[in-house]
Amino acid sequence: MQLTPPYAVYLGNATDILGLKMAASIAYWRPELCVGEIKGPDCTVSTGLQSLSLEEAAKAGAKTFVLGFNNAGGHIDPEHFAIIQEAMALGMNIVNGLHDKLSDQAELSNAAAQYHVALQDIRHPTTRYRTGNGAKRTGKRLLTVGTDCSVGKMYSTLALHKELEARGKPATFRATGQCGILIAGEGVAVDCVVADFISGAIEALTPDNDPAHWDVIEGQGSLFQPAFAGVTIGLIHGAQPDAIVVCHALGRTHVRGLSDYALPSITETIDVNLLHARRTNPNCRVAGICLNTSAVDEQTALEVCQAYSDETGLPCVDPVRHGVGPIIDHL
Amino acid sequence: MQLTPPYAVYLGNATDILGLKMAASIAYWRPELCVGEIKGPDCTVSTGLQSLSLEEAAKAGAKTFVLGFNNAGGHIDPEHFAIIQEAMALGMNIVNGLHDKLSDQAELSNAAAQYHVALQDIRHPTTRYRTGNGAKRTGKRLLTVGTDCSVGKMYSTLALHKELEARGKPATFRATGQCGILIAGEGVAVDCVVADFISGAIEALTPDNDPAHWDVIEGQGSLFQPAFAGVTIGLIHGAQPDAIVVCHALGRTHVRGLSDYALPSITETIDVNLLHARRTNPNCRVAGICLNTSAVDEQTALEVCQAYSDETGLPCVDPVRHGVGPIIDHL
Repeated sequence: MQLTPPYAVYLGNATDILGLKMAASIAYWRPELCVGEIKGPDCTVSTGLQSLSLEEAAKAGAKTFVLGFNNAGGHIDPEHFAIIQEAMALGMNIVNGLHDKLSDQAELSNAAAQYHVALQDIRHPTTRYRTGNGAKRTGKRLLTVGTDCSVGKMYSTLALHKELEARGKPATFRATGQCGILIAGEGVAVDCVVADFISGAIEALTPDNDPAHWDVIEGQGSLFQPAFAGVTIGLIHGAQPDAIVVCHALGRTHVRGLSDYALPSITETIDVNLLHARRTNPNCRVAGICLNTSAVDEQTALEVCQAYSDETGLPCVDPVRHGVGPIIDHL
Repeated sequence: MQLTPPYAVYLGNATDILGLKMAASIAYWRPELCVGEIKGPDCTVSTGLQSLSLEEAAKAGAKTFVLGFNNAGGHIDPEHFAIIQEAMALGMNIVNGLHDKLSDQAELSNAAAQYHVALQDIRHPTTRYRTGNGAKRTGKRLLTVGTDCSVGKMYSTLALHKELEARGKPATFRATGQCGILIAGEGVAVDCVVADFISGAIEALTPDNDPAHWDVIEGQGSLFQPAFAGVTIGLIHGAQPDAIVVCHALGRTHVRGLSDYALPSITETIDVNLLHARRTNPNCRVAGICLNTSAVDEQTALEVCQAYSDETGLPCVDPVRHGVGPIIDHL
């Protein structure tokens, strides 16, 4: 799945920044890939990108029109079809990270053929993967894992990649979800791959590389998450990580959306992830802990990070507040 | 995925019984569902079912024509299209457990529409599943797990189900692979479900039931198999098993097809499977061990089973040689 920047980022009629996961991610991590944002008539929020009309975005050179909003059902309201068609008429590909496929809509498919542009439904892999083979690959790999979903794995992965690059180390961010794919311009939505091919897809995503090169791989789900652990273990086996970084959101006590399921401790998370990671890379170790401390004040955040660090002997930081320098030092 | 017996079992031009996994499974476990087998002109083997022409099978009341052969690529040679079309003309549905889809072939799809019959590509789930929710369900569940793929999980599961029924216990065999689906007449090919929905599919397959009822669930893959562990952990989480039965093939030292990967010990297999099973069912315990001892003589088989039993404190049997009575006793 390869995308073509620069992007025109469409916000639809969003009235809440939490409904703009795709748009906010690309605006934060790769503003240089965006010509600006385009608001629907009822949109009341902004990502901070320059606000443009569709025609202005085209003039600024936008090659791809990105659906930047999300919603619970992953549904695309037909109210957006008109502007999608106009964007195609202006020569833009369309990127969609929602569950619903644009390519299932005959009128949009026909228009895409007419204008020689692509409808890129990035949650739906088009590659035919092979099953994993567990064969050792050259190069180094880091994978983020977590106590739960939505604890900051993508943010942490991107921060770790950025820090490696800042230190002049050869490194590539490897995206496994729709927001990450938009940021990287390529990747695989691993939760949408057929179950037989989860680890095979990750092996393909992170192929042989120079011995000193780091693939910094976006984790998904959690081994303790009753819905999504299959994705997680396949990611771990396929990644053959040399290092894992454990992510956790402070204050969360139960699995998101499943109040019957308590979160594992950091120590338990480390133990079980290492158990499985060492199946395909016996030398895997833990590089550190990334803590989302947004629920507490600055002083408490420092104290909690220090306490986790004392307990585990590992660097523990909030990537937003403290950066990830100590984890890269430890790597 | 619901099938309609009785079946006419087509062997193609098979010259080796190992190339007839689907046919041999249904002939062994549910001969009463089969009107007979149909051989291609170059077929040299038999499942033991009565050999019939297609017309004789139709007269005997066959409702479904089953492709009984398999091959490495999961490919369907167009040489079989003619007899498939004839079977449809005689009013039969077509069941295909190979990777290639019959429904991708326009001439077959058109013929199916013309004759009002179904092309059932049972490796390709058509149900739209929801993600798992881990909510506790009523009724009891047993799941087979293994040290590897192809160690006899389906055979063991069916033997356990048969023994429960023989004792008058309410029980249902729940199929998770193509051969099992053929035997049960329904089920889900869990390795072909989209990764996000693995455990959700198993929750749907094994819904609330009477408190005394056992769902006896066919396991897949292994937590130690670098290609397929995602399927396995999703199955475990979705099944919420009250009991697991560990399957192993004696003499196998490495993961099938992956010579770099040693098999785990039985003890390790028990520990890691229980760890994950107890995430969704804290009361899960091990009911016993099923050993495929076909590589050794009768006396050695008994000694090895006794040794495993002494080591683990669990009943250990070869389901083929000894039956699974002691495991059901222990349950």
